[in-house]
Amino acid sequence: MSKEITSRSEDYAQWYIDIVKKAKLAENSAVRGCMVIRPYGFAIWENMRDQLDRMFKETGHVNAYFPLFIPKSFLSKEAEHVEGFAKECAVVTHHRLMNDPNGSGVVVDPSAKLEEELIIRPTSETIIWNTYRDWIKSYRDLPLLINQWANVVRWEMRTRLFLRTAEFLWQEGHTAHATKEEAIEETIKMQGVYAQFAEEYMAMPVVKGVKSANERFAGAEETYTIEALMQDGKALQSGTSHFLGQNFAKAFDVKFLNKENKEELVWATSWGLSTRMMGALIMTHSDDQGLVIPPKLAPVQVVIVPIPKPNPEINEVAEKIVAELKAKGIRVDIDMDEKKRPGFKFAEHEMRGVPVRLGIGKRDLANGVVEVARRDTKEKSSQPLEGIADHIEGLLDDIQNNLYNKALKYREEHTSSVDTFDEFKEVLENKGGFISAHWDGTTETELKIKELTKATIRCIPNDVEMEEGKCILTGNPSKCRVLFAKAY
Amino acid sequence: MSKEITSRSEDYAQWYIDIVKKAKLAENSAVRGCMVIRPYGFAIWENMRDQLDRMFKETGHVNAYFPLFIPKSFLSKEAEHVEGFAKECAVVTHHRLMNDPNGSGVVVDPSAKLEEELIIRPTSETIIWNTYRDWIKSYRDLPLLINQWANVVRWEMRTRLFLRTAEFLWQEGHTAHATKEEAIEETIKMQGVYAQFAEEYMAMPVVKGVKSANERFAGAEETYTIEALMQDGKALQSGTSHFLGQNFAKAFDVKFLNKENKEELVWATSWGLSTRMMGALIMTHSDDQGLVIPPKLAPVQVVIVPIPKPNPEINEVAEKIVAELKAKGIRVDIDMDEKKRPGFKFAEHEMRGVPVRLGIGKRDLANGVVEVARRDTKEKSSQPLEGIADHIEGLLDDIQNNLYNKALKYREEHTSSVDTFDEFKEVLENKGGFISAHWDGTTETELKIKELTKATIRCIPNDVEMEEGKCILTGNPSKCRVLFAKAY
Repeated sequence: MSKEITSRSEDYAQWYIDIVKKAKLAENSAVRGCMVIRPYGFAIWENMRDQLDRMFKETGHVNAYFPLFIPKSFLSKEAEHVEGFAKECAVVTHHRLMNDPNGSGVVVDPSAKLEEELIIRPTSETIIWNTYRDWIKSYRDLPLLINQWANVVRWEMRTRLFLRTAEFLWQEGHTAHATKEEAIEETIKMQGVYAQFAEEYMAMPVVKGVKSANERFAGAEETYTIEALMQDGKALQSGTSHFLGQNFAKAFDVKFLNKENKEELVWATSWGLSTRMMGALIMTHSDDQGLVIPPKLAPVQVVIVPIPKPNPEINEVAEKIVAELKAKGIRVDIDMDEKKRPGFKFAEHEMRGVPVRLGIGKRDLANGVVEVARRDTKEKSSQPLEGIADHIEGLLDDIQNNLYNKALKYREEHTSSVDTFDEFKEVLENKGGFISAHWDGTTETELKIKELTKATIRCIPNDVEMEEGKCILTGNPSKCRVLFAKAY
Repeated sequence: MSKEITSRSEDYAQWYIDIVKKAKLAENSAVRGCMVIRPYGFAIWENMRDQLDRMFKETGHVNAYFPLFIPKSFLSKEAEHVEGFAKECAVVTHHRLMNDPNGSGVVVDPSAKLEEELIIRPTSETIIWNTYRDWIKSYRDLPLLINQWANVVRWEMRTRLFLRTAEFLWQEGHTAHATKEEAIEETIKMQGVYAQFAEEYMAMPVVKGVKSANERFAGAEETYTIEALMQDGKALQSGTSHFLGQNFAKAFDVKFLNKENKEELVWATSWGLSTRMMGALIMTHSDDQGLVIPPKLAPVQVVIVPIPKPNPEINEVAEKIVAELKAKGIRVDIDMDEKKRPGFKFAEHEMRGVPVRLGIGKRDLANGVVEVARRDTKEKSSQPLEGIADHIEGLLDDIQNNLYNKALKYREEHTSSVDTFDEFKEVLENKGGFISAHWDGTTETELKIKELTKATIRCIPNDVEMEEGKCILTGNPSKCRVLFAKAY
């Protein structure tokens, strides 16, 4: 089965697609750029979503739901926002079909043209701030801490499953605050929530930082990001949190009476994380045998394979182990298929990235042991049946930690510090990864570097040290190093 | 506060809208027919969704996600389906906006016209069965038991919050089976899941039955329904489960090799339940003081109000009660607002339908008691602090049961059996509710009755008794009574 996957060294992009398809995570649909998220892929997304949702609620947020449609005129109200989002989007112009007078099938009814076109939301700031105008009257209505789980559409020209699709699923938080300080604090807090989620649950180390002006969200005053490094040395932006200043409050006239009974504009943040994270998860851990998923997000954490096939004696032991594991909250399955050989099943569960596989054969049982195989290192060991549930519980933690440490080691090995443009190009070409270098702070230089090398500024790290230096391209003075990389 | 609500007797429709708005459940948006579901309303929907999702998973279903867009040509592939769904829908015709050459703002870019228009899914049978064609090859791929939580759009002309909106949230199950028998079994099983959910969680009694041919889902061979009765004597269709025969398999060429290695068409079901259920929940239990929600679905089950306002001594007791209730899994809040008077808070929590309110005053504490008020009957009692958590746990069960029994009693009192058309009209006019009557089985008669009285056949109950009779309208022979009502 693993034969069917292209290796990373051979063709990284094809390897990614092979995994997404062979592990049955997602596939292209009949609609250009839109994917079908298959049950196994969706189960992983559900685990991600549920964990994020818990973290949002623990930090005081509530969920709500706003319309799919945005009136065209709303998009124009915030000048930068319209530049960023009004360009490639799905436009609803009519509300009725009719039987084709010239034949079979249906055609758009020309008499059902909308007075104002509706845009499928590419992001919801505009419709939400238009609503907040009625909800916010006084400082007592603030802060407003609302999140939405939704589908959004951006008409991307080149799409890749999970990483860039015309329709994708995400959450978008939209908060409103009485002061600038509080809004900035919220923005940074949510960047922290994303980083914690990425590191603790996805086992994916991230760099926290702020975007350069050029890479900012359209309409934001500052964009905070978490950036991860994939196994091909390219960076992936993994979640962004925006301080929107008073831009949307101005555009939609959202004011409140402060404690002194004076009218002020409201301060805003927005933050989003999408099904793109599925792509990050896949690319951070998987190998040439297929998907590797951290135990905390795996739909099935342990699979039991009766060897050579199910029989009453083995099944009884398997059921007992299942009960013990379930009592610990571990997600476990028995592979009861009678027709497939163990070797085939092993390859299948490897492909799906199940973190732990237990093999139970008659001879093992006679010896009071089972075979335990871990997906991450592919190590196998014989473990006593007695206490097997405790062993597995510990093993799942080990695997989670090992995946994180392995990814962290990879990132550390692929983070370089350079001082000249030649060095910069050399590292980018031969090694990839993050490159820490001085930049003169201008968009012009940033774009020139991108044009010459395809590398972009991923972020100015939150914990960057102030250090006098010279821009690698222009030689102009620089106050700190920033992180460059080629990116998805 | 309750003064702001119109009473049911005065204007039932306005009473409903008042509750939806004053309890902050939902509101109309800037987009015609689309609602904003506010955080409190969404929290109730989340509880409904999470419980249904558990029930779907317990019955072997998994979630997946299919595209928002349906190519126009897909809708035409199933003849009846297109008649039912292609008429009022949102049509995407373009994929780009551009700056208006004649002024400010943006306009549709005429050069970005789609080759084939895309319809926002009104329901997903077509795109899903087009996908199933690739997933189903052999009997070993069946059954396929998939559910999707999604937003859908039907361009309704007259909309009402939750009950009928252009965009709504729902789940749609789409299953594929090797045999007709198994598909019918699935259809009935899911009708049962809906009924169990309605009765056990929503505390809303329902009649299970099948729809007449005229009221069937477009493309179904049989539609199973659950029908509830609202407080104004009108019925509300609350969840439908469709046996689709091989219609979609034919339309999308979905075939499988059976055990004898012969090709057969696949059998299908689909079943859906939507945010419309929020409307049903509100109308089944609420009263002239506001929302009433059954404890199992209430975002906040118990609210503690310090009297006259928070102080350290009272707060300490309140925190202790909160800890005890949380330990029992009860959702509880303390109202710590210092500025509102108790009377105002009481009215507010009544409006929001919080099932149990605890008042804690200094005098109560001195006596070792708290005041317990239940939302459903508005009874108040003094209860010893000792064992208060156990008392409340029992009380929440009592309230859940009481709401169900009250609704059941209402329905029983408003279910009439009539034998003549005069009687039929008289009951419909003066009493409302379900009317059990003979019908000759023809669509013609059904439509005539609807035209004359606005009543429709809600269903032929699953447990109907065969009984010779005469149609109330035509006098033609009838084999059983069916259930009529005016409906939402």
